[in-house]
Amino acid sequence: MRIVRTVAELRETVGAHRAAGRRIGLVPTMGALHEGHLSLIRAARAGSDVVVVSVFVNPTQFDDPADLAAYPRAEDADVALAASAGADLVFAPEAPELYPSGYATTVTVTGPVTETLEGAERGRGHFDGVATVVAKLLVAVAPDAAWFGAKDAQQVVVVRRVVADLGLPVRIEVGPTVREPDGLAMSSRNVRLSPDDRVRALALSRALRAVQGAADDGADAATARDAGLKELATAGVAPEYLALADPDTLEPVATLDRPALALVAARVGEVRLIDNLLIDPFGAR
Amino acid sequence: MRIVRTVAELRETVGAHRAAGRRIGLVPTMGALHEGHLSLIRAARAGSDVVVVSVFVNPTQFDDPADLAAYPRAEDADVALAASAGADLVFAPEAPELYPSGYATTVTVTGPVTETLEGAERGRGHFDGVATVVAKLLVAVAPDAAWFGAKDAQQVVVVRRVVADLGLPVRIEVGPTVREPDGLAMSSRNVRLSPDDRVRALALSRALRAVQGAADDGADAATARDAGLKELATAGVAPEYLALADPDTLEPVATLDRPALALVAARVGEVRLIDNLLIDPFGAR
Repeated sequence: MRIVRTVAELRETVGAHRAAGRRIGLVPTMGALHEGHLSLIRAARAGSDVVVVSVFVNPTQFDDPADLAAYPRAEDADVALAASAGADLVFAPEAPELYPSGYATTVTVTGPVTETLEGAERGRGHFDGVATVVAKLLVAVAPDAAWFGAKDAQQVVVVRRVVADLGLPVRIEVGPTVREPDGLAMSSRNVRLSPDDRVRALALSRALRAVQGAADDGADAATARDAGLKELATAGVAPEYLALADPDTLEPVATLDRPALALVAARVGEVRLIDNLLIDPFGAR
Repeated sequence: MRIVRTVAELRETVGAHRAAGRRIGLVPTMGALHEGHLSLIRAARAGSDVVVVSVFVNPTQFDDPADLAAYPRAEDADVALAASAGADLVFAPEAPELYPSGYATTVTVTGPVTETLEGAERGRGHFDGVATVVAKLLVAVAPDAAWFGAKDAQQVVVVRRVVADLGLPVRIEVGPTVREPDGLAMSSRNVRLSPDDRVRALALSRALRAVQGAADDGADAATARDAGLKELATAGVAPEYLALADPDTLEPVATLDRPALALVAARVGEVRLIDNLLIDPFGAR
């Protein structure tokens, strides 16, 4: 397993593989790898000849400096885990390598995709930061494909938009959300939950399943959402949002006459968590 | 000479050259080619194995729809001229090829580089449009080097910033401003000048030479600028700006103790013109 710190070395290494006709796969991460990341690395391994995992806690996508400071960092463990899942190379730059002196360029996606849900709660700077760093990583690695997790549903929509709009020659692959046995969506932030909050955090996935259950029973969108809100209230969790949205555009869905994404965000104790579930009112699950 | 309309065909064609180890050069233009463009194409020819000239009147960098509508278009002549200067391929997409349905992504450079001079006069959307289309063209062609004209001095600074900040693997080359025998900087807009305005337009280059002459005589920055303003006033040309700025950052230069860029913009009749000259207070000219 090779660890690379600079874009120049990354280009040289990956470029040699590309020149040899090998397919390059990228899994961008902020480190603190968990089973969700590892499932993406395994998928990239299956679909590529060379797997690059980037580990970079991107400062520009944090609206809250305290959240950035508290974000877990564990590079040695990350490198070992990435290797175990099949990564060939870890790209772990320091911030000035990606944001040099005088840095002044931002990639921005406008419209409902970035203004609702996470964009509304975290401020529009969040997705500017995501779009910018993903564009930079895709330019630096120039992979054939890049893997993202479905848990960050809105990030996936934003990344697809950036790739389409800038014409970046990469295939975007999405891996399913990986959950703990009790249903909690895996997240690097989960380690910061107190034991009590770890239990309360289950309300998010329970709420999404309640929305799904109500939709299965033929409920309309508002009623299905109320079923989810009730689960959150019972656990004493106040959501930042619980929404039904179009999976491609994230525009609000008022009628459950087609598949919709149920998305939830809530602060549990000190920790902000998100989760989502695709609700198919006609599908067999 | 091959004309390509789609990014897919462009990638296939250029990719085959790149795979054969050929160096790719790009000259981005908005068409209406004149000797300034041709000098860039010749420079690209000398420094590359394959020369791509893009011809695209980029709608997003026009603040004024009337200016966009009036911008000269002459594709057949452009293709012939590009070929005569050594281009191998003209990339001439329609707007929807670069700005597909649902397009929502902008590359933005913030700070004095885009907020002063042209940015202040044309609105910040101008350089957002420039930065976005240049990023897209550089991603689509993936050239080893791209050539830009010194006449669009602020554009060069913005493009250098985008390339550095996004880490685009391309060398930016700048070709000198090409002038008519009487000093007028070549511009696609010059054809729109009436005969009288064509004479008045000479005030821009005369003003820059007056700044230079004053600096040669040891004048301070304000006095040198006044010498330029006097030339404009004599010709009845009201400048949008006549400024002395740092060549790299475009921040205002108050003291002529180092090389400075003198930049001027003015509307002559219906036509907006710009010009610039590097003032070296210690240089021999």
